[in-house]
Amino acid sequence: MTLSATSHAAASPAKQSLSPLESEPASTELDRILPQAVELVKQFVRSGQDPETFVTPWPSIAALRQNVQLDLPDVAAAPRGGEATDAALLDAIRLILDNSVNPWTGRFLDKLYSAPTPVGICADLVLSTLNANAHVMSASPMLSLAEERCVEGLCRVFGFTETKPDGLTMPGGSSANTLAVQTALANIFPPFREQGLLGVAAYLAEKHGRTGSAARPLIFTSDQSHYSLDKAAISAGLGLSSIVKVPCDETGRMDPEALSRLLESAVSSGSGSPFFINATSGSTVLGSFDPIPALSALAKRYGCWLHIDGSWGGPIIFSPTEAFASQMAGSHLADSITINPHKLLNVPLQCSFLLVRDAASLGANSLDAGYLFHSKDARENAAMKTMGCGRRGDAVKLWLYWVRYGKRGLGEHVDAGLALAQRVVDYIRTEKAETMELGPLASPLFLQVCFRPKPRPGQGRGEASIEQRSAATRHTHRELQQRRRFAVDFAPLPRGIGEFVRLVVHPRTKWHDLQELIDQVDDIGQAYWSQASV
Amino acid sequence: MTLSATSHAAASPAKQSLSPLESEPASTELDRILPQAVELVKQFVRSGQDPETFVTPWPSIAALRQNVQLDLPDVAAAPRGGEATDAALLDAIRLILDNSVNPWTGRFLDKLYSAPTPVGICADLVLSTLNANAHVMSASPMLSLAEERCVEGLCRVFGFTETKPDGLTMPGGSSANTLAVQTALANIFPPFREQGLLGVAAYLAEKHGRTGSAARPLIFTSDQSHYSLDKAAISAGLGLSSIVKVPCDETGRMDPEALSRLLESAVSSGSGSPFFINATSGSTVLGSFDPIPALSALAKRYGCWLHIDGSWGGPIIFSPTEAFASQMAGSHLADSITINPHKLLNVPLQCSFLLVRDAASLGANSLDAGYLFHSKDARENAAMKTMGCGRRGDAVKLWLYWVRYGKRGLGEHVDAGLALAQRVVDYIRTEKAETMELGPLASPLFLQVCFRPKPRPGQGRGEASIEQRSAATRHTHRELQQRRRFAVDFAPLPRGIGEFVRLVVHPRTKWHDLQELIDQVDDIGQAYWSQASV
Repeated sequence: MTLSATSHAAASPAKQSLSPLESEPASTELDRILPQAVELVKQFVRSGQDPETFVTPWPSIAALRQNVQLDLPDVAAAPRGGEATDAALLDAIRLILDNSVNPWTGRFLDKLYSAPTPVGICADLVLSTLNANAHVMSASPMLSLAEERCVEGLCRVFGFTETKPDGLTMPGGSSANTLAVQTALANIFPPFREQGLLGVAAYLAEKHGRTGSAARPLIFTSDQSHYSLDKAAISAGLGLSSIVKVPCDETGRMDPEALSRLLESAVSSGSGSPFFINATSGSTVLGSFDPIPALSALAKRYGCWLHIDGSWGGPIIFSPTEAFASQMAGSHLADSITINPHKLLNVPLQCSFLLVRDAASLGANSLDAGYLFHSKDARENAAMKTMGCGRRGDAVKLWLYWVRYGKRGLGEHVDAGLALAQRVVDYIRTEKAETMELGPLASPLFLQVCFRPKPRPGQGRGEASIEQRSAATRHTHRELQQRRRFAVDFAPLPRGIGEFVRLVVHPRTKWHDLQELIDQVDDIGQAYWSQASV
Repeated sequence: MTLSATSHAAASPAKQSLSPLESEPASTELDRILPQAVELVKQFVRSGQDPETFVTPWPSIAALRQNVQLDLPDVAAAPRGGEATDAALLDAIRLILDNSVNPWTGRFLDKLYSAPTPVGICADLVLSTLNANAHVMSASPMLSLAEERCVEGLCRVFGFTETKPDGLTMPGGSSANTLAVQTALANIFPPFREQGLLGVAAYLAEKHGRTGSAARPLIFTSDQSHYSLDKAAISAGLGLSSIVKVPCDETGRMDPEALSRLLESAVSSGSGSPFFINATSGSTVLGSFDPIPALSALAKRYGCWLHIDGSWGGPIIFSPTEAFASQMAGSHLADSITINPHKLLNVPLQCSFLLVRDAASLGANSLDAGYLFHSKDARENAAMKTMGCGRRGDAVKLWLYWVRYGKRGLGEHVDAGLALAQRVVDYIRTEKAETMELGPLASPLFLQVCFRPKPRPGQGRGEASIEQRSAATRHTHRELQQRRRFAVDFAPLPRGIGEFVRLVVHPRTKWHDLQELIDQVDDIGQAYWSQASV
């Protein structure tokens, strides 16, 4: 109970030796440096609105590496404290901003997220200043309350009304999907928590006479679903062989008859024990929505947990347009749902939720921690619901959006994006029919449009192979990177049709930017095909 | 390939219908609302420096719930756009700030984190404005570069110099520890990735003749380690029974001889296959450091992965004082290390790293994703290293701290905290010997000090039971909550000695605050014991 001889008894000064991290009162420092940092980010946002601003600072990573080095000084460059040290900090911030992708151009159409709104920046500012850990409510009363309230609101929107639902923020859609898989395992197979998958195998052998491969728990998900389902299978110790990929129709929607056949075949052939069906709402490449009611019926028949990965498409449920919102019809039948407001709703990264129809199901993730949890109430101890502990209070960002825009405003935001995506398709169909090839589209259309330049038949180039068409796509992508005016991605599409430009239309994208991008792709493509030898 | 009949062909307007999330140019909105939000957070920080400000807004969660409700409007309260909508937003931000814990008081001593520095707030502001996803470098060039550089710097500090090391940020220490367990499983047991734990069991049977319980992979970690190791075992499908808890000495340090016995016993009795040893550097309750070289020798002997959970204590390696930094001696022998700069280094939540000695080991976590990864280079595709996908660029926060304070400044920060903790212990020993009981201390002392009021023998109360002493602790904690002047936690201590107040000394805590807290605990305790019937 006493300090050993190695104790640092000499280190007990009469006067406190100050940490270099607080060489002046925090408010003095904050009052001085925060407004300067604010000026820099305001300039960054403003420059994004200049039509001449490049979306990407460098045409390639190699060029970035050649031109930008980051220092890790042993000793801070300037004397500590006061204005003298500020220059190095502000230079560093300037260096970051000057060499970053600028999403405020509205021309970053590369991924499933875009610029946040100014509300999001204010929300992150508050979060950072509070620096409260949302693991227990006593440490983060308002962040935890905002989380509770957003979870309630989202559960209501998705129709979790007949049970006592629950949920929590997670640090991303992958984490949320992974927690869904782990929660399902623990709820469906009683030995999972204590005995793990070896215990589950023994349980299946004893209870159902399933041994060998038949004792392998299986996840069913479409071949267009996000790779996080595969990663969740690795993470949970199931292994990739526990994933059964279900074929989709040509619009990227899971074929429920194929699912039915695969489920039946797994059980009858003894190749595994189905326990989890994932419905994708808004697939990564095409933006397709799996038919939830049909999947739910199969989940019930085979005793499976039904999860909806609505990371990208989930917010469509906010739409006031019935034809759109109905893409999520049946969401109330799911056992769990992932939704990422940081994607379509433009909340800053990260803001992701896992919702569960039955609050009790999250109890499987709880462990005692005497130093941390002083009650058994998961509402006061959100960390009990997860496999993690410390948590950033990301829900407060969604809450501030909800206050600012209302449920209705969030829904109209979604509608604005869908109208825009349709306009892109119409433009390509009517104006570019001869020189551009549309890829398969989600049906109904969501927010992705895949297309690529095609050779004109009139030029005797109609017989270009798929590999040649993919090469044209990659050439176009590289050329767009060089021009630095648009950031847009490309992807191999299903059914072996090769690579296409994948445009993600965001609700705040400007039509004239989309038109310019399509025209540029067209120009690049025509120039390419006129020189390419097919 | 065509839109079906359910397509929304009518939704193609001549004029773009704007999203309510952008009813005015973003820079106009930002220029108007951000300075107002900045004013509010500046006031919050400033009020924290007023000695009269309460650290917690409410004495209990019940009181908070009674007094604060959060709205989720269907329609935004005010007309959209312009100043008219700002009032609701700023009211909402004010509501959050007014009812939150204020860490800027310096009197939040409850958890292993405290207020960030103003640099951290600026860094989060930049991150939020960039809103770049650090999953691929092309989307987040500077955030990815900062991550690469910080990983290099941390690897150098921990002595990963003989191999090509690597690492990445994770959304918390639990996630990092969990990824370490999953990475170890995949590296030690070749079938893990494809066949999961059932494949691992078959492999162990075939290769080593281990069947039944002998085929269960085992994790060895001290009984004082963080619960994330237990959660990692559940997450990875191992189950809690795969965790072997190793006893500690009275200072909370793992006993390597006990570890040796438990390893040998597992192998000889066939109760499992050891594959992972976790060394805690800075335990959650006492702040103890396990002896890394001894654990490394055992890890080598039994073919185990050695992980260091330095979430809390890892930054001690920055200390310029050899006696302190040497607590991490042997860190270069580990296969992986977790460190959370968001704890001791006061970087805002979250900022956590997993480092690996051998870059190739993270390859086990990679999956192809044609739409996302356009090269095999993990340096350009950090998401390849994880079980996740989208990632906030948290490393840039540490990078800005490193620029501002230098490695030396971060180390002196640690030293300032250690001197202060020693002063707390000295004060209790010399001034409070009669009325306060010190709990076991880490040796050498780290940043936690556990203590509780004790009855004076002179008052005939020396025979109080452990339960009675714990009750005094809980009473003290409740009374401190009521007073709202200090936030401090309590915890049951090992070896059945009951509950103690657990004070976490942070390097920027003011000595006079610590003194006042100890005096308050003493006063509360003396009043309690003078009335309690023992």
